Amino acid sequence: MDVLENLKEKIELVEREIERWVPRSIKPEPLGNSMRHLFSAGGKRLRPCLLLLSCEAVGGKVEDALEAAAAVEILHTFTLIHDDVMDRDELRRGVKTVHVLWGIPMAIIAGDALFAKVFEALSENVRRLRLSAEKAVEIFRTISVASFEICRGQAMDVLMVQKDRVSEEEYLKMVSGKTGALLDASMKIGAIIGGGKEKEISALSTFGRKIGIAFQIRDDVLGIIGEESKFGKPIGSDIREGKRTLPIIYALRHLPLEKKKMVEEVLGEGKISRKKLEKVINLLEECGAIEYSSKLALELVDEAKKELSVIRDSRAKETLLALADFVITRSI
Amino acid sequence: MDVLENLKEKIELVEREIERWVPRSIKPEPLGNSMRHLFSAGGKRLRPCLLLLSCEAVGGKVEDALEAAAAVEILHTFTLIHDDVMDRDELRRGVKTVHVLWGIPMAIIAGDALFAKVFEALSENVRRLRLSAEKAVEIFRTISVASFEICRGQAMDVLMVQKDRVSEEEYLKMVSGKTGALLDASMKIGAIIGGGKEKEISALSTFGRKIGIAFQIRDDVLGIIGEESKFGKPIGSDIREGKRTLPIIYALRHLPLEKKKMVEEVLGEGKISRKKLEKVINLLEECGAIEYSSKLALELVDEAKKELSVIRDSRAKETLLALADFVITRSI
Repeated sequence: MDVLENLKEKIELVEREIERWVPRSIKPEPLGNSMRHLFSAGGKRLRPCLLLLSCEAVGGKVEDALEAAAAVEILHTFTLIHDDVMDRDELRRGVKTVHVLWGIPMAIIAGDALFAKVFEALSENVRRLRLSAEKAVEIFRTISVASFEICRGQAMDVLMVQKDRVSEEEYLKMVSGKTGALLDASMKIGAIIGGGKEKEISALSTFGRKIGIAFQIRDDVLGIIGEESKFGKPIGSDIREGKRTLPIIYALRHLPLEKKKMVEEVLGEGKISRKKLEKVINLLEECGAIEYSSKLALELVDEAKKELSVIRDSRAKETLLALADFVITRSI
Repeated sequence: MDVLENLKEKIELVEREIERWVPRSIKPEPLGNSMRHLFSAGGKRLRPCLLLLSCEAVGGKVEDALEAAAAVEILHTFTLIHDDVMDRDELRRGVKTVHVLWGIPMAIIAGDALFAKVFEALSENVRRLRLSAEKAVEIFRTISVASFEICRGQAMDVLMVQKDRVSEEEYLKMVSGKTGALLDASMKIGAIIGGGKEKEISALSTFGRKIGIAFQIRDDVLGIIGEESKFGKPIGSDIREGKRTLPIIYALRHLPLEKKKMVEEVLGEGKISRKKLEKVINLLEECGAIEYSSKLALELVDEAKKELSVIRDSRAKETLLALADFVITRSI
């Protein structure tokens, strides 16, 4: 398949580039190992692929954006390590999380150290291509603002667990920061490096933002009805942690009182029985929460795809459209 | 006093600039409050002052480096928040630490969010001054590499607690990263913005690195013989946490076996009695560990001051020389 071939080539280049910025030679060894752990455990490399495709879609070359592509994956990985500490998650990509293996202090440092590498890699990209100061500033500003947005989204997520009522609007704002911001920034930086026009950069950014939100909604759904072996995280952990996911928000608004109470009882309970968990999952399916969430994700992806009408047809554009569909059909 | 006046003016400008990058308007509120907490608790603002003085010392204007000055203080504050989580320290600058007040997850996010702001502020400085792409890259590379060095130093610090024997060489390497790197980077960025020649930039960086190491040694000493009300942290907490500070390393090498055992017993014990702690502090003074450490710090400061011979005389240079002395005579 053409789309898969296209992505496979890019992923190979990105892997090599990540190795360059997070090399085996980092000392002290536990720091290097904890920084590299989640990369070697897999991952879809969605963000770097989007960045490279965005660069190509406006007429740029993949080779010109490799450091930036590595940078956004490194940034993403840093947020995963810290999120796992905050949520006390023990599994990610089917392997033990960094703090479980090296302890919380080393996990915090590993995340910080990866964050530092993001800007080192971007600096090198700017230097190598001799980009203008204007473009350099725009790239750094984009990644900094996105990083802050991610933090704000994560803070909202943490605070929502303690809240009684969370609206769909609040949820969408949180997710737009937590996941949308980096996909947006990846597309934007790719398009800037590729020399895109303002209209193109803006369309590609919006595409990233919208599929980012859809991606997170799909994540919420997979966390309830996914297959653990494919998904890499324990099914139901969002429920155990009391996370306000879209299906949960929908269900709490639409279930009859008694069933609603049943869901509320289980939210954030930590250790709940498999049986109780299955009951709640059934309730979520019954009341249409899964269907509703999937429909909203589909609408976002449709809107995202429409944005690309300003981009001329190419193999890169075709792959972006296919990726948009993947975001909401994926089981991994 | 001229020197104090000079610093006071700068600190006022820096405070305003920090407010601009970490404003009261940040939402959600607990994120904003936890980001701003340590700034409002005080602090010496050593790094921004060094940056601005370095800028002036090569002929630049203070007004041209304000965002960068705020950026290095913001970076420093981020590391303090994360360090306090790792060390489980409960007091800093005489107030409760961020994780004690807002919990560990919010403290991790607050640190990450401040780190993001560092690069946003730097981007704005580069944009406002219309610096060349070359200078922009150099500034971003400097701060990224320093941030990574800080992480490496912190990782060494965390790992050393579990080690039986730590050499003075390892200690100096750790401290050079943990504290030296950011003072070095502050001086370097100030000098780049100020338009310094390569020789000047290099001398000012080295000055920063050396007084940084001396600063940390003084910190180790104050953690043992300082006055808690001035120092802002509990005296003896390094010992309780089992930290390998220079006085401890010296003492473990020079104390007779029995007394050495007494120190080893107490290291990292957590809850030790006031009386036992005082005994260990007496041992550290007796064996010359405090004197040795203070002498090494003095030597480093002398070396640092010699570096400034390539810088032409000015009020800024005079203030830098005074700050170098302050680093090892301070009790705060």
